[in-house]
Order: sequence, then structure tokens, then C-alpha cells
Amino acid sequence: MIGGGSWATALAKILSENGARVSWWMRNKADVEHLRSTRHNARYLSSVQFDLTRVTPSTDIGEVVKDADWVVLAVPAAFVKEALDKLDRDAFKNKRIISAIKGMIPGRNELVTDYAMERFKVTRDRVGVVAGPCHAEEVALEKQSYLTIGSPDLALAEDFCQRLRNRYVKAHPAADLDGIEYCAVMKNIIALTAGVAHGLGYGDNFQAVLVANAVQEIRRFLYALSPQPRDLSASAYLGDLLVTAYSQFSRNRTFGNMVGRGYSVKSAQMEMNMIAEGYYAVKSIYELNKDLRVNMPITTAAYHVLYEKISPAVELEILKEKFR
Amino acid sequence: MIGGGSWATALAKILSENGARVSWWMRNKADVEHLRSTRHNARYLSSVQFDLTRVTPSTDIGEVVKDADWVVLAVPAAFVKEALDKLDRDAFKNKRIISAIKGMIPGRNELVTDYAMERFKVTRDRVGVVAGPCHAEEVALEKQSYLTIGSPDLALAEDFCQRLRNRYVKAHPAADLDGIEYCAVMKNIIALTAGVAHGLGYGDNFQAVLVANAVQEIRRFLYALSPQPRDLSASAYLGDLLVTAYSQFSRNRTFGNMVGRGYSVKSAQMEMNMIAEGYYAVKSIYELNKDLRVNMPITTAAYHVLYEKISPAVELEILKEKFR
Repeated sequence: MIGGGSWATALAKILSENGARVSWWMRNKADVEHLRSTRHNARYLSSVQFDLTRVTPSTDIGEVVKDADWVVLAVPAAFVKEALDKLDRDAFKNKRIISAIKGMIPGRNELVTDYAMERFKVTRDRVGVVAGPCHAEEVALEKQSYLTIGSPDLALAEDFCQRLRNRYVKAHPAADLDGIEYCAVMKNIIALTAGVAHGLGYGDNFQAVLVANAVQEIRRFLYALSPQPRDLSASAYLGDLLVTAYSQFSRNRTFGNMVGRGYSVKSAQMEMNMIAEGYYAVKSIYELNKDLRVNMPITTAAYHVLYEKISPAVELEILKEKFR
Repeated sequence: MIGGGSWATALAKILSENGARVSWWMRNKADVEHLRSTRHNARYLSSVQFDLTRVTPSTDIGEVVKDADWVVLAVPAAFVKEALDKLDRDAFKNKRIISAIKGMIPGRNELVTDYAMERFKVTRDRVGVVAGPCHAEEVALEKQSYLTIGSPDLALAEDFCQRLRNRYVKAHPAADLDGIEYCAVMKNIIALTAGVAHGLGYGDNFQAVLVANAVQEIRRFLYALSPQPRDLSASAYLGDLLVTAYSQFSRNRTFGNMVGRGYSVKSAQMEMNMIAEGYYAVKSIYELNKDLRVNMPITTAAYHVLYEKISPAVELEILKEKFR
């Protein structure tokens, strides 16, 4: 397990409680020591108690990866390159790689799985993604959740599903690696824009129209990138979009809300003391779309607001004319 | 305008502010007198002030309909038959009928437009429905809203759209009368079931999966009933479903929530002092499906809970196994 955040913690809980031995890389030595001495992650889902006969935290990413059959990537997208670049180029040899990261490599506009495949010479049939409408906080509370494992190799996907399934987690395999991964990135753009709209005083009627139009925007984009049959109303796409766009606790929505209320991008980031993943996602998807030229009014509006300092009120006025 | 509830009030506001003369039927004499003397509807959206040179309330439905070019039906589905049966059989001759009712005729399992066409010998090209992700309360606040007018006659639909469009309402025509009307009925079943799940302690992850699976259930049902191309991610379908299923104020959700928490159906109804439309919708759609035999796990679960006294916990356990 690569990463010490809430989603990594939720997945470490599920996997270890199912009997997996989990070597767990965290960046901070203090967090590793806290977990070792108290059996809890100090900073995320701190109510979850881990069985230290199965869970071994470490700050040495090379050690953590060395003996693993599976590598689960769960650091924020902004830090994944920094984390993985410490590893030897053959560190993923004969391993299977699952990305739980909902973002792209900043500056490279590349999916995390594409980056991992390229840098570590991993073939496509050894890679998967975890998607789900899945707040980590609800996993901690053992509320019924559903995950989808997307991989070109359905046997690999099913294998990982079996490691996840338990009393409160259902998991199923799906073949659409790229579509699921891009949708997970784009949902953060939608949640951020929903926050902007809310901050400007738009209501629930508009939010519902925004999400409906978002599904159409995501469909157009995915079709241009990777035209294969996929049902966007499946949990991995629509479900994941809904749980994020309708969450009052979403960092992306909160960040967008502050921008909508008049905070500058910089002051919203300082106030939140973190950067919402949607902030990077907007730039990556917008830039990728320069070649594809898909009609993407929501992503375009968010890009203009966040990167070209155009007033949120003006961009939402333009956006609302494009919806129906 | 037939009906004095919140949706009728919102539509009367939009239409009259656009210059239409609105003859407005309300059942209660006291409500008519209150509107005449105060310019406000006593019971719904009472902040909205009407221009009485354009709006004429009356308890005489025959008078109200007599000189109208358009008849807008906006009473609860449970009462529409009772209201319309007072009219002569030729009362709708040469008129265009728009249904804003999100329910079916109880006991007949018939769409409101089908009932109106049959009883009053109205042809299909003179009928339409209003759908939208549209809380009436947000119309009162003049928040940006979107409506879809569905009619086999797109010119009729566009004509009515023009009467609705204003600073805060966008409207567009669509050809799918039946699909839009059935979806408006079914969304109440989904909101009710979301309430049951919430009452039982299921969380946001499950709600997102429920709504994603609901889109698939609605699609299967509509395909069986009326197989024509339609994009269920359009605002009239998905948007309307979202605004209802995610509304904390939805009567259907509130009613379901009480049932999930252990109230009997009867005591939940008494406590709410009204009957949620989804309660009737479940029965109509379930019975319609006896012939169609579409796989409808959500409707089936809701029917079992509401009409066969099966425990909500048991039905949700069954339902959760069917989702993915």
C-alpha cells in the first residue's frame, strides 16, 4: 500500500481484515511510529484499529514494494511521481499494480496507470484501477459500499475483487481501465464546479442539471479518447460522480464553493491548507482536450475560473446558457 | 391552471409573469378568496405575489377551462380523476393539454395524459408533459431552473416552452412524451426507497449506487414499454431523478425514511398528514410490470415493503445483493 491518506487507510483496512499481509508505505516517520505503537493511523480514519501481525508500516518504499505481489497506489496524484521515482525501474517486475488514485500526473497530463506502465515497463494486463462511489469514512464505519476494479485483464480484476469482498463491500470486475480512470478524474472537476455554482447562489435545480450535463460531457470525452461500449450509468461512473458531486464534505466542492463566494484561488487554497485534486484535474483534462476538441463546457468554465482569472459569475452565466 | 399546490403555484407565477392570462382552479373556496384578497397563495410558495389583472382564481373548474387555449394539469395524481370527472366530455375540445403531474391515476395504472386523452377524446398531438429537475420552492426564489416539455408534437412543445422561458427558466422541447412521464413517476419510487435505506442506516455510498442502479432500472422499464432512442442522462430524466432523490425535503424521501426507521406505513402517513406520491407510484408501476416482467429490483423491494408488510431491513438486504 503506497500512501497514508484516508483512501489508503480504508483499503488497508479492507485488505488486511480479509487476511492480506499489507506492507504500508507512509511518507512521515511519525505516522509510521504512531501506527506501530497505537495500531491506528494518526491522521485519517483514526477510529480504525489495525492488526499489526498483518500490517507493517514503513517509510522505505523500496522495502515495502520488494516482496509484494500487488502494489496499490493511493497517494494524491500530485505526489505519486515523487513517491514512485524513488523506486528502481524494475521494482514492479512480476507485480500487479492497482491504482486507487483519482487524478493525473501533473505537468504530464497522464493517467497514473499510464505513467506506471511507462516508467516501470509494466504491461497493460498487469494493471487495474479501483473505482467506486466510496467515501473512505463510510468504509471506516463499515457502511455498505461497492467497488469496481477496472482492468483489461478481467481475471486480474476478479482476483483483486476477491481480496476486497466482505460483509460490507461488494466488488465487481470491469474491462474499461481508461474510461473508469478518466471518469474518476473528471468527477472532481464536476464537484468543484458544483461548489462554484453553490457559492454563487445557484440551487438544487441547477446542480441536478449540472450533473446531468456532466454525464454527457464525460461521455463525449471518453468516446473521443477511447471509443468502446460502456454504460455511464454504472456505479463506477455515475455512482462515483454522484457521491462526490453531492457530498457536502468533498474537498473539491468546498474549494469550488469558496471560489464561487469570491475567494481567489490562492486564498481558497491557503484557507483550506490543501489543494483539491480537481484543481489539477481541470488543467490536465483541459490541456488533453486541446487536441481532442470535444465540447466540454464544464471543464472549460472551470479552467477559465481557476487558471485564467475569469470571474466565476461570468463563467457560470456562459455555462448556464449551454445547459439544457 | 388546475391545482393549487406548490408546483401549480410555481407554474402560475412563471406563466402569468410572462404575460399569460391564467384562470386558476383551486378546490378550496378559502384559498381562492385568500388569493383574491391578498394576491398570495395561502398555503404554497406564499411569498409569491400575483398580478390579479392576469390571474383569476376560481373553484369552478368548468368556468376555468371554458375559455382556455391551454389546460395545465397540476393536482396530485391521486385527485386528478376526481377533479377532471366534473368536466363535460367535450371540455378539452380544441385545447392543448399539458400535464405537470408526476404520478399515475390510482386504480387504473394509467398515465395522466393517457387518461385525459381517453376520457376527453384528445388526440396525442395536442398533449404534452412538463418535466424538470425543478423544486417549486426554487422557482419562487427565481433560482436558475430548466424545464423540458415532452410532446409528440414538437411545435406544441416549443410553443409552451416560449411561454415558460424567462430570466431564470430555460425550457426545451423533446419528443418523448411517455418516457418523460413515466420517469417522473418512477423517480418518486427511487426517492422513497432512498429514504428507506437512509432510515435503515445506509450511507451516501449506498445512495449513489442506488441511484445509478435506478437509472438502469428506469431504462429497462422504458425500453420495454416504449422502445425509442432516448438519452437518460438528459435533464428531464437524470436531472429530475437527482433533484428528487437527493432532496432532503422530498416528501417521498421523508416518508421512506420513516418507514426505514420502523414506522408502519399507516403511522408514517398519519404522522406526515399527507400521502407521498411515490406510495401510489410503486403500486402502479409494480402492477404494470406484471405483464412486462422487466427486472425491477428497486420497485419490487418498495412494493414488498409498502404493500406486503415485508420488513424494510429484509428487503434492503435482498436489494443490496442485486446492485453492483
